[in-house]
Amino acid sequence: MTGRLIGLGTGPGDPELLTLKAVRVLRQADVVAHFAKRGNEGNARAIVAAHLRDDVIELPLYYPVTTEINRAEATYSRCIEHFFEESAASVASHLDEGRTVAVLSEGDPLFYGSYMHLHVRLAARYPTEVIAGVSAMSGCWSAAGLPIAQGDDVLSILPGTLEEAALAERIARAEACVIMKVGRNLAKIRRALAAVGRLGQATYVERGTMADMKIVRLADKSDDAAPYFSLVLVPGWSGQP
Amino acid sequence: MTGRLIGLGTGPGDPELLTLKAVRVLRQADVVAHFAKRGNEGNARAIVAAHLRDDVIELPLYYPVTTEINRAEATYSRCIEHFFEESAASVASHLDEGRTVAVLSEGDPLFYGSYMHLHVRLAARYPTEVIAGVSAMSGCWSAAGLPIAQGDDVLSILPGTLEEAALAERIARAEACVIMKVGRNLAKIRRALAAVGRLGQATYVERGTMADMKIVRLADKSDDAAPYFSLVLVPGWSGQP
Repeated sequence: MTGRLIGLGTGPGDPELLTLKAVRVLRQADVVAHFAKRGNEGNARAIVAAHLRDDVIELPLYYPVTTEINRAEATYSRCIEHFFEESAASVASHLDEGRTVAVLSEGDPLFYGSYMHLHVRLAARYPTEVIAGVSAMSGCWSAAGLPIAQGDDVLSILPGTLEEAALAERIARAEACVIMKVGRNLAKIRRALAAVGRLGQATYVERGTMADMKIVRLADKSDDAAPYFSLVLVPGWSGQP
Repeated sequence: MTGRLIGLGTGPGDPELLTLKAVRVLRQADVVAHFAKRGNEGNARAIVAAHLRDDVIELPLYYPVTTEINRAEATYSRCIEHFFEESAASVASHLDEGRTVAVLSEGDPLFYGSYMHLHVRLAARYPTEVIAGVSAMSGCWSAAGLPIAQGDDVLSILPGTLEEAALAERIARAEACVIMKVGRNLAKIRRALAAVGRLGQATYVERGTMADMKIVRLADKSDDAAPYFSLVLVPGWSGQP
């Protein structure tokens, strides 16, 4: 009998936004794995800290590179693919011993999460369950009190890594947008929003639902510095009754 | 001192996908309001039933019309707007008495939820908090074990109410799509997917995370009957490593 693989959504940051199911499974899991930068315990690990059993086996999976290598380079792809293969093998060795392994995933596991790289490698071989979590974007628009989309609105989730012209065109064609992966792309995102006349509707949210959250109209933000945990929200629902 | 207004996300259906915060607030709230069809307790009410206090005041808000009147008619707009005004007044009367009112919202409150109609009418006048929930779409792709979007994918959330040509064009231009409001629109959605060669990638999920959930490849679904609680998922991440 192999163990079960569980992709466990931790929600956006506030530990109270864990689901009852996530808490139950955390208490039952033999192994809790999480992705992190070396030297940093990781945000997902911090969110669930209060629920970890004393005797749980922790399996941190440290990214070999983060921003040192340009993502477009073949070296990056090879390096990161090798990392996911090794990570899957580490998780599989516990599953083969009959241990249940919960892999923490910030936000929602199958929505732009690192867990997905393990899922595609292991889900066909082991009994697998994914526990949905509150996404980072839901945490952000809820914290900002910003109704994001209603009725017949189209909502586009856009990576800030898109080229400026493509980004502007996508923003222009949707009633509502969420721009993710803001980080180093904020100046470009700002220009794209301005180009289609929507900068005034944009809200910037940094570390949504966490203790040091920051929410500001993007037009009022005086610099273009943004951490990884930031989003830009452009709400729809212009015809709200 | 007025009471607090709380938009409370109940998650997609499985009562275990409630957040810890939602459960805490349910136990503290003086009044729990929910939208429903008359003669039907409503799904949100059922999800939280185990956490309601014996002495809680329940405030069901019954839609005056659902499918009897064409949504494009002015009568519908007037009728539904009047209903939201009256609902906001009912909630406000409790807030004025100093009672905390939690308004249940299936999925996530500010993401296509009826709670939004109360939020825009009341949030400026009363202390308000929104508790993010697991969205229906997250519940569906997690239950289906379907990685929806990764990396630089654009994810479009599309209402099935869009016209066929517009729907097809939107589907063609995004790496990943979620089509909501399937209901009576399934035949049209199917044609739009086929027109851009993506029917084979689409998964149909009915009542995701609930006890009577159904998950099937859309191409294998033999009829076009679909309840309100159904979605079509078209996953991205074609270049998965």
